[in-house]
Amino acid sequence: MDRIKRNERLAALTRLLTEAPNRIHTLSHFCEMLGAAKSTLSEDIDILRDVFDTFGLGKLDTVTGAAGGVRFRPHMRREDAMAFLTGLCSDLQSSNRMLPGGFLYLSDILSMPEITRKMGTIIAGEFYDAAPDFVLTMETKGIPVALMTAQSMDVPLVIARRSSKVYEGSAVNINYVSGSAGHIETMSLSRRAVKEGQKCLIVDDFLKAGGTAKGMVDLMSEFNVEVVGTAFVMERAQQGHKLISNAKALMTMDVTEDGELTVKPADWL
Amino acid sequence: MDRIKRNERLAALTRLLTEAPNRIHTLSHFCEMLGAAKSTLSEDIDILRDVFDTFGLGKLDTVTGAAGGVRFRPHMRREDAMAFLTGLCSDLQSSNRMLPGGFLYLSDILSMPEITRKMGTIIAGEFYDAAPDFVLTMETKGIPVALMTAQSMDVPLVIARRSSKVYEGSAVNINYVSGSAGHIETMSLSRRAVKEGQKCLIVDDFLKAGGTAKGMVDLMSEFNVEVVGTAFVMERAQQGHKLISNAKALMTMDVTEDGELTVKPADWL
Repeated sequence: MDRIKRNERLAALTRLLTEAPNRIHTLSHFCEMLGAAKSTLSEDIDILRDVFDTFGLGKLDTVTGAAGGVRFRPHMRREDAMAFLTGLCSDLQSSNRMLPGGFLYLSDILSMPEITRKMGTIIAGEFYDAAPDFVLTMETKGIPVALMTAQSMDVPLVIARRSSKVYEGSAVNINYVSGSAGHIETMSLSRRAVKEGQKCLIVDDFLKAGGTAKGMVDLMSEFNVEVVGTAFVMERAQQGHKLISNAKALMTMDVTEDGELTVKPADWL
Repeated sequence: MDRIKRNERLAALTRLLTEAPNRIHTLSHFCEMLGAAKSTLSEDIDILRDVFDTFGLGKLDTVTGAAGGVRFRPHMRREDAMAFLTGLCSDLQSSNRMLPGGFLYLSDILSMPEITRKMGTIIAGEFYDAAPDFVLTMETKGIPVALMTAQSMDVPLVIARRSSKVYEGSAVNINYVSGSAGHIETMSLSRRAVKEGQKCLIVDDFLKAGGTAKGMVDLMSEFNVEVVGTAFVMERAQQGHKLISNAKALMTMDVTEDGELTVKPADWL
């Protein structure tokens, strides 16, 4: 009976911890829910930590102190991340995805739950220590990856719009220069969406010259919000100056003058 | 040692099954990965099924036949779903969310990972049997809930746009009448995004007169895709005729002539 109980507890704990990632759960909460003593649950957590390490299923940490407890963080091992991205790059390169104008069709990849979840896990893994209060993206294509990143980090996702909408309430609008096209564009964010003094992680789908990313950074400074990082799914390699620095992209693409495409995983991983 | 091993297997199995929902995993795959016999793994699965049932953590099914195996489906018990939605309705009603024109500020709720994950779980629970090949939404605000629904069902998310974009390739555009405003609007979807003969679940944030939803249904008929269901986060109660029928909304809102807001959980749950 005792043996069955530990089995049950371990399965339940795994589900409860992994479905609420990056959140500190007190042992007392689990004690009550699962009818076990704290010492028993501590042993359970030790077992789980080892299992998660062994199979590369994420990181389980014990956080000490008054607000302490146990916390699960989705995390992909470097070799798993490289294998995933290498496979993705090879798929992107082999399939017929080139569009007129040197664009690459990515919309399917960017909204597949399984793929975006993995991307979000890799990005989150780089920025847990920076402890952003929210993830910011610009509509539309980056939303799924940004949401999955936010989920891994247990913070809200905030979506900047191309124009202010009646159902967003009063908004701050900024104009920015789209880096590649050179057009003036507008970016809008509801005043309620963020609070002064917060920290923000920018996540978006594509980095070319960096105009949109620079726009998001400028928008955040209007709100007195600190940008602690910028991450992208894909970066377009180019000789020219990029408008933002220290951006982390999961993949880099390049197109030769003959129209030949190469896609490579990030070298910072 | 044997006892430790079962513990480890149960924890690993829980994580592996729940992070790849609605997918049939063969026992042989787990046998190889975890170094256990099929009979042993069958016992493990029986234990997990009971634990998941006991704590309302989702459903574990054994699928028989040649392509058989074990499948985890996120599922929220009726009472848990009602408690979640009742709490959400009460939050929405008590906070100062009314905007000029009778609009309700929902953008924060609609992009919080934890909230949208639960909404996606409830919606998916209603449509597993309909077995859609993908989830369709219209940009922008419904994307997070639609993605979470797609994740629960292990199908791709497809996003219709307000206009065709160069990086989406050739597209099918349709015009539709926005039900509440009466404007003519355009909706666009890349030709590559879906295949003839597929089945689609429509998920969006807000149902008023149903113009946008009707547009999505019409768009699907252009692709010869069958719509197997329509689900919304919020429905605006109104006497008038709605342009689509059989829609399932998680919550219903009403605003009296005095501007008083009521928000209630769905009665179909």
